[in-house]
Amino acid sequence: MPKTKSRTPASGRVRIIPLGGLGEIGKNATVIQTDRDLILVDAGVKFPEEEMHGVDLVIPDFSYLISQRARLRGIVLTHSHEDHIGGLPYLLQQLGTRVPVFGTRLTLGMVTGKLKERRVLQFADLSPIEPGTDLALGKLSIQFIPVGHSIPDAVALAIRTPCGTIVHSGDFKLGHPGESEHDALRDHFARIGQSGVLVLLSECVGVERPGRTPPESIVVAALEHVMQAAPGRVIVSTFASNIGRLNQIIEIAGRLGRRVTIAGRSMENNVRVAGELGFLPSSSEVLVSTEAARSFLPNQIVYLVTGSQGEPTAALARIAANDHPHIRIVPGDTVIVSASPIPGNEEAFAQTIDNLFRRGARVVYKAISPDIHVSGHASRDELGELIQTVRPRFCVPLHGEYRMLVLYRDLAIAEGIPPGNVLLADNGDVLEFTATSARKDGSVPAGSVLVDGLTVGGVTQVVLRDRGHLAEDGILIATVLIDRTTGELIREPEIVSRGFVDDTGADVLADARRQIKTALKRARAPEPEYGFLIEKIKETLGQLVYRKTRKRPMILPLVTEV
Amino acid sequence: MPKTKSRTPASGRVRIIPLGGLGEIGKNATVIQTDRDLILVDAGVKFPEEEMHGVDLVIPDFSYLISQRARLRGIVLTHSHEDHIGGLPYLLQQLGTRVPVFGTRLTLGMVTGKLKERRVLQFADLSPIEPGTDLALGKLSIQFIPVGHSIPDAVALAIRTPCGTIVHSGDFKLGHPGESEHDALRDHFARIGQSGVLVLLSECVGVERPGRTPPESIVVAALEHVMQAAPGRVIVSTFASNIGRLNQIIEIAGRLGRRVTIAGRSMENNVRVAGELGFLPSSSEVLVSTEAARSFLPNQIVYLVTGSQGEPTAALARIAANDHPHIRIVPGDTVIVSASPIPGNEEAFAQTIDNLFRRGARVVYKAISPDIHVSGHASRDELGELIQTVRPRFCVPLHGEYRMLVLYRDLAIAEGIPPGNVLLADNGDVLEFTATSARKDGSVPAGSVLVDGLTVGGVTQVVLRDRGHLAEDGILIATVLIDRTTGELIREPEIVSRGFVDDTGADVLADARRQIKTALKRARAPEPEYGFLIEKIKETLGQLVYRKTRKRPMILPLVTEV
Repeated sequence: MPKTKSRTPASGRVRIIPLGGLGEIGKNATVIQTDRDLILVDAGVKFPEEEMHGVDLVIPDFSYLISQRARLRGIVLTHSHEDHIGGLPYLLQQLGTRVPVFGTRLTLGMVTGKLKERRVLQFADLSPIEPGTDLALGKLSIQFIPVGHSIPDAVALAIRTPCGTIVHSGDFKLGHPGESEHDALRDHFARIGQSGVLVLLSECVGVERPGRTPPESIVVAALEHVMQAAPGRVIVSTFASNIGRLNQIIEIAGRLGRRVTIAGRSMENNVRVAGELGFLPSSSEVLVSTEAARSFLPNQIVYLVTGSQGEPTAALARIAANDHPHIRIVPGDTVIVSASPIPGNEEAFAQTIDNLFRRGARVVYKAISPDIHVSGHASRDELGELIQTVRPRFCVPLHGEYRMLVLYRDLAIAEGIPPGNVLLADNGDVLEFTATSARKDGSVPAGSVLVDGLTVGGVTQVVLRDRGHLAEDGILIATVLIDRTTGELIREPEIVSRGFVDDTGADVLADARRQIKTALKRARAPEPEYGFLIEKIKETLGQLVYRKTRKRPMILPLVTEV
Repeated sequence: MPKTKSRTPASGRVRIIPLGGLGEIGKNATVIQTDRDLILVDAGVKFPEEEMHGVDLVIPDFSYLISQRARLRGIVLTHSHEDHIGGLPYLLQQLGTRVPVFGTRLTLGMVTGKLKERRVLQFADLSPIEPGTDLALGKLSIQFIPVGHSIPDAVALAIRTPCGTIVHSGDFKLGHPGESEHDALRDHFARIGQSGVLVLLSECVGVERPGRTPPESIVVAALEHVMQAAPGRVIVSTFASNIGRLNQIIEIAGRLGRRVTIAGRSMENNVRVAGELGFLPSSSEVLVSTEAARSFLPNQIVYLVTGSQGEPTAALARIAANDHPHIRIVPGDTVIVSASPIPGNEEAFAQTIDNLFRRGARVVYKAISPDIHVSGHASRDELGELIQTVRPRFCVPLHGEYRMLVLYRDLAIAEGIPPGNVLLADNGDVLEFTATSARKDGSVPAGSVLVDGLTVGGVTQVVLRDRGHLAEDGILIATVLIDRTTGELIREPEIVSRGFVDDTGADVLADARRQIKTALKRARAPEPEYGFLIEKIKETLGQLVYRKTRKRPMILPLVTEV
């Protein structure tokens, strides 16, 4: 696709450019741009896929934003999940100037810690916005609409532009009609819909799930049921960011006469921040320190711990591995995992549950107790209801694997949006709208930038390919010392291996040394050429090793002339 | 646990020794042994876990069997899935003598090809057994009981021993009472139960699933519904071994006036073998070659392809990647994936479905169309029914992750088996029974043996750890040439990296060279020691690199004295 030539839309046009989140779950970041103003909605990260060996995080390519920095009026955050805010420190670092950042109080509270940790807080001009209020950024006016999600203080956005209103759903659920917790949201969306909506940008993570996402109240009932029946200690693990769930657990514990103690850094941090901001009781009698917890009987205590995804260094996996400094499973313990594994975490999740059973705990998890967790995302009927309520002229699914984008398109069409008005985009696509029309207008760079330790972008495809190769078959290093005048071997070639196989070692290596010598003898006359020697060694060694082992380790000849 | 001292049980006792399948799904292999006779039920493989980089397969440690080879009366196979037969070629190779192998016709038909491929057919004395008939091996008498599973000709076993009858469930499902396909099996189990059963060895893979596994008939209806509505070509992918499902697809295609063509080596092989043995119509009019398929209209053809797990080299993933030699997705194509991803395959499975959508296909898969596939394993109520029907004195769950074994124990207790009579074992545990008692009596070696290319067992924990390290952070190789008499550097140290990061490269490496020189100067006097030099280089380079990148690549100093 050709690159956009004109960097700004003409007057009377608005551009939507998703920099991430399409064909993937993660690194959500969407540019909204008029002829004079530009805002970014969210700046998330994605967790690396299996074949991205050693990579810590994946962030969007922010180069388009960097090039447009003069027009950037602000960064607007919908909620403080990593896939919506995790890229912000990197973006701020790259922008290198102070940028206005808007979000609700809890969102900014959680962002602050992360920016401090990465030492970029000075680049963010943080302004908390009350849900329900409006924010003017240049000619754009942005309304923050409180939505239900698996973190409190999450919002959708209604962005008034000169061409019309853009609704950005954020991450949301609507539940069943009549559930009081979401009725205000229904009304809010209906009012916006009645005033006319140009584009609905909707998340679609839950589109494969039929019906509606069950209400949190069923989780509360299930948690209370299990905790009430538990004969001894209860250990509950859930997402550290699910402050609403944490609150429920603390309340249930209080009702059952149990104290709660927190284990795991991210949960301790979140409970502290949420407490300070009034989203959790900050000085509840129920919350006690780990030390104080020791003085209670087993059936008087609840441990609230991190690691619901089976992350190997988090509290739950360490408890399961009998490797936690304070918590050791004893018979009579009940462990509740109030979460589903995120795609990619299934193996670690299952292993943690198995290990907990091995330690003798009773374990309650979603596969055998479906009500113990519900998703924070809308299911198919709720996504359809949002379309029906907002009645947009155009629909663009954001935030979903490619199959989800397609299923959302089918859904939008079934809900009455004309097929041509549902736009399936790729990351970087420039979607340009007038008050009545939409078209794709080229694209901007929007690849994945890999973060590995302190390195941002230094892990290239070549590096990843090498890591994959090393992981699969290991490496053989052949050190060859050659007399620079005669071209003769000064000594036996040395071969060192790492990550190859153990038992074929000795005889294969002896054979290899012999073959390298023979190959070099042939290669010598009339004049040994460095590149040729290296290729010859690679070829000889590679063929020999493949014949004997059916493996193709990386072969690295180090030829030194002395 | 102490190793078993006495290698054979006393007269009047029988031992059951699971060599695999406990705390894992895969490498099922169970020894049944009396004072004079020993048989092995199944010899399966397991697919490697994520952290087993480069490993192709995992097989049981067969050393106990090797040590008992003189008493081995035969190997009995319940069905021809890889997790029950895949280890057989390796076992035969290790035994090195001709061994009787028993199974039903289809099982042995499928095994034959695998043994030929691995060139060990000469070590197997294959005897087909008709389901329903008995087989005498020493004092053991074995009845083959036909069961329903996701491959035809699968059996459970009733093994009469001097202490009583052992029932081995194999992999099975019972369905709902009244489903005619399983009623004969119900009766069969009931008859065995009435004559008294000492031990029930039951698979428990489906114990997390409540209720009963839905019947194949719902899959047939769903497949027919989708295929009938498909406007163009239909591409169906399912397990190549699910001959029953293949048969259904061929029959539906026939009813709808479509021809079927097969793509993918394992499916072609299985269709050929199953056809020769009468489990599929061998000369159906419906089956046509890939070439012949070209002459039919899109709505007259069905492609039946391998790759339902998203395996990257199988037909479906290649079609999805637009990389298949014959099949290219065109608008109007419908792809049906009649399978669930096996744990560990979720990412590849999802990626394949995404790619098919990207190519423009309509894709029907289990998440959005639950009836398009059902499991071949019994769900909780069926497992409970088997216990009720067989009424064993003792219960031992086999073939399940650890959590499944525990859930099965809870189920067995709920079904009335006394808690002390449900035995939760580990691989290698020796379970010794008399007609009235059971106890654990030590254990035999039963670890995992890794197969990598032609290497069996050569991939040790050290090799795996190195591969993991290389995958995570890559390798830095420092070549240092030293004058053997003076101990001085002959030239600048050379540093080569693979799988490390690209951008920090130049300056870090220059720095590293300087630091190595300094370190070596200090290390030189009075006499340079090889080991010390190496440690010094590792330390210097490691610290420098970690400080600059927060990465810990493998560091390999190659010091050569000239």
